[in-house]
Amino acid sequence: MRSNRVCNITGIKYPLFQGGMVWVSDWNLASACSNAGILGTIGTGGMTLSEVETNISKMFDLTCNPFAVNIPLIRPNAEEIGHIAIEMGVKVIITAAGNPGAIIPKLKQSDVTIIHVVPSVRGALKAEHEGADIVVCEGYEAGGHNSPHEITTIALVPQVVDSVDIPVVAAGGIADGRGIAAVMALGAEGVQMGTRFIATKECNAHINYKKKLVDAQDTETCIIGRKLNMLRVLKNNFAQRILDAEIKGASKEELLKIIGSDVNRNVSGAIDGNVAEGTLQAGQSAGLVKDILSVEDLVDSIIYEYGKAVTGLPVF
Amino acid sequence: MRSNRVCNITGIKYPLFQGGMVWVSDWNLASACSNAGILGTIGTGGMTLSEVETNISKMFDLTCNPFAVNIPLIRPNAEEIGHIAIEMGVKVIITAAGNPGAIIPKLKQSDVTIIHVVPSVRGALKAEHEGADIVVCEGYEAGGHNSPHEITTIALVPQVVDSVDIPVVAAGGIADGRGIAAVMALGAEGVQMGTRFIATKECNAHINYKKKLVDAQDTETCIIGRKLNMLRVLKNNFAQRILDAEIKGASKEELLKIIGSDVNRNVSGAIDGNVAEGTLQAGQSAGLVKDILSVEDLVDSIIYEYGKAVTGLPVF
Repeated sequence: MRSNRVCNITGIKYPLFQGGMVWVSDWNLASACSNAGILGTIGTGGMTLSEVETNISKMFDLTCNPFAVNIPLIRPNAEEIGHIAIEMGVKVIITAAGNPGAIIPKLKQSDVTIIHVVPSVRGALKAEHEGADIVVCEGYEAGGHNSPHEITTIALVPQVVDSVDIPVVAAGGIADGRGIAAVMALGAEGVQMGTRFIATKECNAHINYKKKLVDAQDTETCIIGRKLNMLRVLKNNFAQRILDAEIKGASKEELLKIIGSDVNRNVSGAIDGNVAEGTLQAGQSAGLVKDILSVEDLVDSIIYEYGKAVTGLPVF
Repeated sequence: MRSNRVCNITGIKYPLFQGGMVWVSDWNLASACSNAGILGTIGTGGMTLSEVETNISKMFDLTCNPFAVNIPLIRPNAEEIGHIAIEMGVKVIITAAGNPGAIIPKLKQSDVTIIHVVPSVRGALKAEHEGADIVVCEGYEAGGHNSPHEITTIALVPQVVDSVDIPVVAAGGIADGRGIAAVMALGAEGVQMGTRFIATKECNAHINYKKKLVDAQDTETCIIGRKLNMLRVLKNNFAQRILDAEIKGASKEELLKIIGSDVNRNVSGAIDGNVAEGTLQAGQSAGLVKDILSVEDLVDSIIYEYGKAVTGLPVF
C-alpha cells in the first residue's frame, strides 16, 4: 500500500474513488464511502452553491477521512465552487467536462490536490501540464456524459499511462474487484466507479433506479444525444424515443423538444423513480450489478474479489 | 499452463490467438504465429475456395503446430469452406459474424474444435448451446466489423465469463502483455489480437498500412457505416467522407455510392497501400502499436510484458 501513489497523494486506504454523479452522490453516499476507506465524492453537478456548502459541512460532521468535491467545468460558477470548497477545508477537488487550463492553475494556488477527468491522451497531457496531481481516464463504457472520441477503458488506460508521469486512475466499465485488477495490470494506480455505487443502501437514488440497475443486462445501456452532449443511459421509453428520432436524422431542436427539461428528466429518473420516462445515467458495468449492498459490504467484497483475481492469474 | 483450458483444447503453447483478418492473414502471418506457439489463423474473408485450399496446404507445409481457419458466416459458402478445411485436416475452426446455429452442429459431426466470436452474453449463450468449444467475446474497440451492441471488452468479458461454462477468449483493444493480464484478471482464459499482428514483418499487408498503424494515436480510429455494417477503421480521407455524409443524414444508397466497391477499398488500403482512400481496418489498440516486429519477437515481448504486469500488481 505504501507504494501506491494514489493512496499517498489523497490519504485514502484503498485506491478506489466513488465517482461524482449528478443528483445521486450527495453526503449520504460520499460519507459512507470515505468511512469505508475509499474516496467519497460530492457530485456538485445538480447542486446550488448553498447545497454544496451544506454537503461539505455534513461530510466534516460524518467522516474524519479524506473526501473530494467533483466540479463539472461546464458550470459557469465552477471556479467559485472550487474556492468555496477550499475555504471550507476540502483537500481534494476533481474537475471534469471542460478545459482544465481555466481553473487548475487558480485552484493550485492553495494547498489542494487536483484530479482531472479526461477521455484521451491529449487531455491527460494537458491536465498534467496545467498542474493536475492525478488524472482519471474515463472510457466510452462509462455512464453519464461521454466523449465523442469513444476510446474504451482497455485501450485508453495503457496509452495514458505511457504518456504522463502523474498517476492514472481508470474509470468506465468497472464494477468489481476483477475490473480493478484488470486496469491495475494496464498500469492504472487507482479506479473510479460510479454506476456500482448507485446500487448501494446509502445512495439517495430512488429504489426503482437501483432495481433497474440490478436487472440490467449487458446490452441495456445506450448512448443518446450524439448531436448534443453524448450521454450513456439505461434503455427505457424515453431513451428509445431519442434513438428513434436520431436514426431518422432529427435536428438538435427536435431532440431538445423530445427531452424537454434536462433537469426534470434527470430528477424524474434518479430521484422520483420514473424509470420509463426519466434519464437513468449508467455505464456498461450495469450488467455486472447484481445486488444492492451497504457501501461497507460492497468495498469489502471488491477488495476480496481483487485479491482473488490477482492470485488467480496464470504464469507462463 | 496445464490448467489453461484454451491451451488444452487447441493444443497451443500460449493462450493467444492471431485474429483472422480479411486480406491480411494468409499463410505468411498464420504460419509464423503457429510456429511461435500461438494460434495462427487463416482469415478466409477475401479468399476464393481455391485460395483457401492453397493457404491450408501451405500451413501444413510450414508448421507442425495447430492453426485455425476463420470463416465469416456472412459468406454464402461458409459451410462448404468448413467441410473443405475439415477434410484437409484442419482441427480448429473459428466462426464469426453470423448465426452459429446454421453451421456449428453440422461441422461438429467431425472431430473439430469450433470457436465462435460473439459481441454479447446472449451470443455467447447461443454459441455454447450450439456446441462451440470456446467463445471469443469481442469488444467495441476491436477493428473491422463490429456489433451495434457496442459493449466494450472490459464490460463484456466478465459478464460472459459469469454466463457460460466454456472458456472465454477476449478480443478488442489488446496489443501487449498488459492487456492480456487485464482480461485474464476479468476471467478470460485466452486473448485474440488482430491489429497488433498486422504490424509484423510476416504480415502481407502493405508497408504503408503498417506504418500508419505505428503512427496512429489513441483518437485515430472511428466507426463508419452505422447504417450499413459497422466497421472500425483508421481515420483517413475516405473514412472522413463517410463520417461527413453520415452526420448529414446520408441514406444507405448515398453511403454505398461513396464507398463504391467494398472489395476494391479494402484491397486498395491493405494490399496496395493507398492509405488515403483505401479501407484500413484497425482497432483502438492501434495507438499501442509502436513498431513492426517479427512475430517471434512480438510473442516474446508480449509474454515478457505479461509476466511483468502480473508480478507488478499491488496486494491490498
